[in-house]
Amino acid sequence: MGRLIARRPVLRLGPEGSTRRADALAVEEPLELRIDGRALAVTMRTPGHDVELAHGFLLTEGVIGAATDIRDARYCGSLDEDGRNTYNVLDIRLAEGVPPPATGVERNFYTTSSCGVCGKASLDAVRLRTRYSPADDPVRVAPEVLATLPDVLREQQRVFDSTGGLHAAGLFTAAGEPLVVREDVGRHNAVDKVLGWALMQGRVPARGCVLVVSGRASFELAQKAVMAGVPVLAAVSAPSSLAVELAAETGLTVAGFVRDGRMNIYCHGERLAQTAPVS
Amino acid sequence: MGRLIARRPVLRLGPEGSTRRADALAVEEPLELRIDGRALAVTMRTPGHDVELAHGFLLTEGVIGAATDIRDARYCGSLDEDGRNTYNVLDIRLAEGVPPPATGVERNFYTTSSCGVCGKASLDAVRLRTRYSPADDPVRVAPEVLATLPDVLREQQRVFDSTGGLHAAGLFTAAGEPLVVREDVGRHNAVDKVLGWALMQGRVPARGCVLVVSGRASFELAQKAVMAGVPVLAAVSAPSSLAVELAAETGLTVAGFVRDGRMNIYCHGERLAQTAPVS
Repeated sequence: MGRLIARRPVLRLGPEGSTRRADALAVEEPLELRIDGRALAVTMRTPGHDVELAHGFLLTEGVIGAATDIRDARYCGSLDEDGRNTYNVLDIRLAEGVPPPATGVERNFYTTSSCGVCGKASLDAVRLRTRYSPADDPVRVAPEVLATLPDVLREQQRVFDSTGGLHAAGLFTAAGEPLVVREDVGRHNAVDKVLGWALMQGRVPARGCVLVVSGRASFELAQKAVMAGVPVLAAVSAPSSLAVELAAETGLTVAGFVRDGRMNIYCHGERLAQTAPVS
Repeated sequence: MGRLIARRPVLRLGPEGSTRRADALAVEEPLELRIDGRALAVTMRTPGHDVELAHGFLLTEGVIGAATDIRDARYCGSLDEDGRNTYNVLDIRLAEGVPPPATGVERNFYTTSSCGVCGKASLDAVRLRTRYSPADDPVRVAPEVLATLPDVLREQQRVFDSTGGLHAAGLFTAAGEPLVVREDVGRHNAVDKVLGWALMQGRVPARGCVLVVSGRASFELAQKAVMAGVPVLAAVSAPSSLAVELAAETGLTVAGFVRDGRMNIYCHGERLAQTAPVS
């Protein structure tokens, strides 16, 4: 697993005293993304699947819409002090005719001049950039299937059990089959790696799919799902208000607290084949 | 609690059937920070304590070192489509003689020209900007006290129990007295609000203090602790490799998996009055 894990000595303290042993830590390293040689963004990520990460990031920020919008990706000759390539600088060449992002994608995304900076403006910004709407996706998911997906995600995680330090995201079919699972120290990166994989596999828009995340569902994660045309987002923990607002408006089903056979459906529950309501 | 919580209808599904009820969601809204009228950054945050958030952000990014480096902070007249102030744009005027950040603080922080983009460069960047080193802080913390702090943090959280959607951070004395607890949909924001409070209270460098975070300890959270001169960082979950590297180099004690009376000490364990080692 190479650079995914670093071993360090650790002192364990507890009621019974202390022990020293080696512990596994999730590796975190900066990744600089460049577009045609120009720095675009730096993210702190777990190394590996960087090309997928770049595809997912550029897709969900609205820079690209298809894998063919990227001509190639290569690691720059970024050397550390021992003269070794860090593999932490990835230069993306866009295909001819694909306009490069102006600058500071992440900053400009939320600010529009149409009104003040507010949740509404954030929603507007996503709506303007969305190429693939989940609104008309007729997929249905059985609640019993959806309830099992976080456990499957956990089983597929290769690193979590040894470090406890990684977020996970996975893309599943509506029947509950896992398509891809990725882990990262950053929750956004885990989702970008999953959606970048989907883009590279020709699976975007990700119609009929469920995106499962190991933690909370923030606005930015809902945004990423919408930008990739995912119809169902399931989170092990809570969604935020703005995530649900975005989802309600764009046609994304949001399930939260999906654990122990239960879940809360915050919007677009029509995709869940329902049992008879008890109240 | 006003804008901290939004109520929405939710469909609860479980083995026994479905119910509809209102659920509380953590509010998430964008905050644009401006310096002397110029946009610096946008963060998705839980509204409230925005001035503290701005102080903490600018402190931990190395822009300011004292509360007096900021002349004033005011909400701009940013109006939503109904003509109401969104209170989502905060303009900071720096005191005379305080140089404004060039641009894109978060992007430039990690990249130096001294070597490629790598963990080492990230550490160098923090070292260059640190005004307050925790290295010479002689504070000692009893492990029994440290072990109780996450529970105190949880008790002090006002919103978590109703939404499940918020990260928390708290600053404690070495004796375990809580000084301040803040919550936010973003983990970085919760820490910025705490450290901004400390700066405004004249408590930076935060010598003798313990910063407790409800989740994982990433590089960026360790960086924030170091920039505020905090000597001990305690996390309920795992630290990353780069967080521990930064801490080891700068003199920050890092405790992880602080729960159920146990903890792992990753570096600078000399600050923990130890019981006799059992092996």
